[in-house]
Amino acid sequence: MNITARTSSNGVTERDFTVGDIPGVLWSPAATSGRLPLILMGHGGGTHKKAPAMTGRAGLLLAAGFAVAVIDAPGHGDRPRTAYDEEEIAVMQRAMATGEPVGPIVERYNGHLAKQAVPEWQATLDALRELPEIGSDGPVGYYGINMGTAIGVPLTAIEPRITAAVFGQFWPGTLVEAARRITVPIEFALQWDDEHIPREAGLALFDAFGSTEKTLHANAGRHKELPRFEADSAVRFFTRHFSKAMTPA
Amino acid sequence: MNITARTSSNGVTERDFTVGDIPGVLWSPAATSGRLPLILMGHGGGTHKKAPAMTGRAGLLLAAGFAVAVIDAPGHGDRPRTAYDEEEIAVMQRAMATGEPVGPIVERYNGHLAKQAVPEWQATLDALRELPEIGSDGPVGYYGINMGTAIGVPLTAIEPRITAAVFGQFWPGTLVEAARRITVPIEFALQWDDEHIPREAGLALFDAFGSTEKTLHANAGRHKELPRFEADSAVRFFTRHFSKAMTPA
Repeated sequence: MNITARTSSNGVTERDFTVGDIPGVLWSPAATSGRLPLILMGHGGGTHKKAPAMTGRAGLLLAAGFAVAVIDAPGHGDRPRTAYDEEEIAVMQRAMATGEPVGPIVERYNGHLAKQAVPEWQATLDALRELPEIGSDGPVGYYGINMGTAIGVPLTAIEPRITAAVFGQFWPGTLVEAARRITVPIEFALQWDDEHIPREAGLALFDAFGSTEKTLHANAGRHKELPRFEADSAVRFFTRHFSKAMTPA
Repeated sequence: MNITARTSSNGVTERDFTVGDIPGVLWSPAATSGRLPLILMGHGGGTHKKAPAMTGRAGLLLAAGFAVAVIDAPGHGDRPRTAYDEEEIAVMQRAMATGEPVGPIVERYNGHLAKQAVPEWQATLDALRELPEIGSDGPVGYYGINMGTAIGVPLTAIEPRITAAVFGQFWPGTLVEAARRITVPIEFALQWDDEHIPREAGLALFDAFGSTEKTLHANAGRHKELPRFEADSAVRFFTRHFSKAMTPA
C-alpha cells in the first residue's frame, strides 16, 4: 500500500492510497487509541470513492468510531475506462433515453465489473489490515447499495473476514447464488416504488440471503429516493454487531 | 377521567386511570416543563396494559421525552370477558392445539374488539388532552403490533389527531380498507418467516397504507421473534416526526 496523500481536519485523517493500481481512500479518527473496526464501502455506478454519498456515510460511521475505506471500482473515478466500459455505458444511456429497461444491462455490466473488483477488494483488505490502527483481527463490515451491492454480495460470499454487511437496491438475477452463501448478519434496503427494480425482484434478492439475522428496510418512494435515515440505520446496524469489539469513543 | 392511583419512581410518574369503565395507565416524566408529545400504545391479544412489552416500550419512549398511555382492550386485563369473548378464545385455543390456521379466527375476533375499542380510545384521548402536561394541540402517535394493529389501524384511519403510527404483524383481510385511508407516516414491522401470517399477507397490508411516507421493517424469524431493536426503531420514528414539537429533555 502506497499512501499518496494525507490530510487531517475536524478530527478526521484522510489518506489517499493505492494498492497496485487501485486508488482508494481511508478515513479514520485523527486521535485513536486501540484498533478500529473497519467498514469497506462500495460506491454506486457512475460515481467514485469520494462522491457525496460516500463522504456523507463515512462521516456518520467515523462519528460512531469506525474507520472507513472506499476504492474506485474498475472504470470509475480515477481509473481508465476500457472500450468495453464505454460500449456498455453507451448501451445503458440509450436504454435510459428510450425508456427501455436498464436492468439487464446494469446486471450484465456490474457482474463484469464485480469479477475484477472482488479480488481488488481482497488485496485492499490485506493491505489495510497491515496498518497498526486496523490490525489483522478486528471486525470488518461491508456497506454498498446499487453497484456497491453488485460487487459486495460476491465479495462477502467468499470473504470470511467480512462479518456483517449492508446491501440494497439490486436485481436478483446475477446475485442470488452468492447471496445464498452469505450467512453473516445483513441489512437490506429497497424502494417500494422503484421504477427500475421490480418490487418482487428486490424481495427475491433479500429472500435469497442465507443469513439467520437479516432485516429488510423497504421505503415508499422511487429508485433515487432512498431516505437519508437509512444511512443512520446502517451505522446502528454495524454498531450493534461490532460493539463488543469497539472501544468507547 | 378518574385518577385511581399515582406513584413516582426513577423519574417516572405512573397514573392509573379510568375513563368511564375503561381502565388505563399514563406514564410521564416526573419532571416536565412544557407539553409532552403523547404515544398511545395498543397491547397484544391475551395481554394487558402493563404487560412487559408495554412497560418495556414505554421505558424507551419516556427516555426520549414522550408521555405514554395504554388502556386495556375489551375482554383484557382488568376488564370482564363476555360469553362471546370466552367462545372465541376457546375456538382459537382449539385451532392452536390442532394446528389449524388461527388467522381467520384472530381477524374476526380482533375486528369485533376493534369496533368497541376505537371509540374507547377516542374518549380516552379526549380525556388525556385535558391534562395540562399533554394539552389539546400537541402531537399524538399510535404504536401497536398484532391486536394493537387490529385496533390501531381503524382508529388511525378515523382519528385526525394521530399523526404518525407504528404497526405490524397482522393479516390484511379486515384492515385493508382502513389502511388505504391512512395517509400519515407509518412504520410497519413483519416477520419474514411468520408461521401464522403468510409473507404475502403482511406485505399486502403494508402495501395498502395510503401514506407517502411509509417504511417496512421485515426481519428473519418466526412470529414471536420480532427483534427488540424494532422498539428502538419505533422510538426514533416518533422522534423524527415529532421532533419539532418536542422540547429538549
